[in-house]
Amino acid sequence: MTRPLRFWEDLTPGEGGETPAVTPSREDIISFARDYDPQSFHLDEEAARQSLFGGLAASGWHTASMAFSLLREHVLDDVAWESNLGFDNLRWTRPVRPDEPLRARYVWRELLPETATPGAGQARLDVQVVEGDDTLAMEMSLLMAIRRRRETG
Amino acid sequence: MTRPLRFWEDLTPGEGGETPAVTPSREDIISFARDYDPQSFHLDEEAARQSLFGGLAASGWHTASMAFSLLREHVLDDVAWESNLGFDNLRWTRPVRPDEPLRARYVWRELLPETATPGAGQARLDVQVVEGDDTLAMEMSLLMAIRRRRETG
Repeated sequence: MTRPLRFWEDLTPGEGGETPAVTPSREDIISFARDYDPQSFHLDEEAARQSLFGGLAASGWHTASMAFSLLREHVLDDVAWESNLGFDNLRWTRPVRPDEPLRARYVWRELLPETATPGAGQARLDVQVVEGDDTLAMEMSLLMAIRRRRETG
Repeated sequence: MTRPLRFWEDLTPGEGGETPAVTPSREDIISFARDYDPQSFHLDEEAARQSLFGGLAASGWHTASMAFSLLREHVLDDVAWESNLGFDNLRWTRPVRPDEPLRARYVWRELLPETATPGAGQARLDVQVVEGDDTLAMEMSLLMAIRRRRETG
């Protein structure tokens, strides 16, 4: 699939869509937690049942990295993306359970012509991570540096 | 180490400190990236040298999860912490390199008595992740639900 590369100038505020789903298994959730966020409600079903989460739930950092992977594979794959600058307004709104498909809905917002990276503009991408039956699991606004077209002439 | 548990009422805006360091190895950085953020500048030294990063750099999600682990182990270990609600103003300001020690500096800010979690208040923890020679690698403001003391009488 060779789509033409889209530069900062090619993005339009309000343009958006939805990615395909990724479905973390129980093993995926436990494996991430064991290595990077070893808390009982991410690791052990029985402990999780007795916690605030009421059952095994993915680490919020796992959910965030899965969301960004969906964007990287399905949204940024044809964008002249340089780097992530950071993000704002990240909220975890509902536990992410094993075997529930997660999709990322996104809208391009506020495009600014300058960043600290020479030759790149800034773009904000508002992202909602939704679970199976359309309930919101996480949201965040990503700030990115996107390469500008080389000036010609 | 059995320190008394600190509730929402025991936290004071302006109170802060610094955690011990964690030092990700080259293998740690590559291992996280392979599983959760497989981009060439997190995986391959030569590709990274030719990228914006100018050398192998940890995934930003890896840095964020290392920072939260430092806080969980050294700051939240005696706090009646219920859950993370989300965070604001996350910025990655400098690449995180292999074998450089990372510390988390933190200050408690803005304590609000209510959250969606019954019996918990909200706390904001402003965090700076600093590298060896005191340069800022990442910052973020965490929003948390912290349990309140049970009313007595």
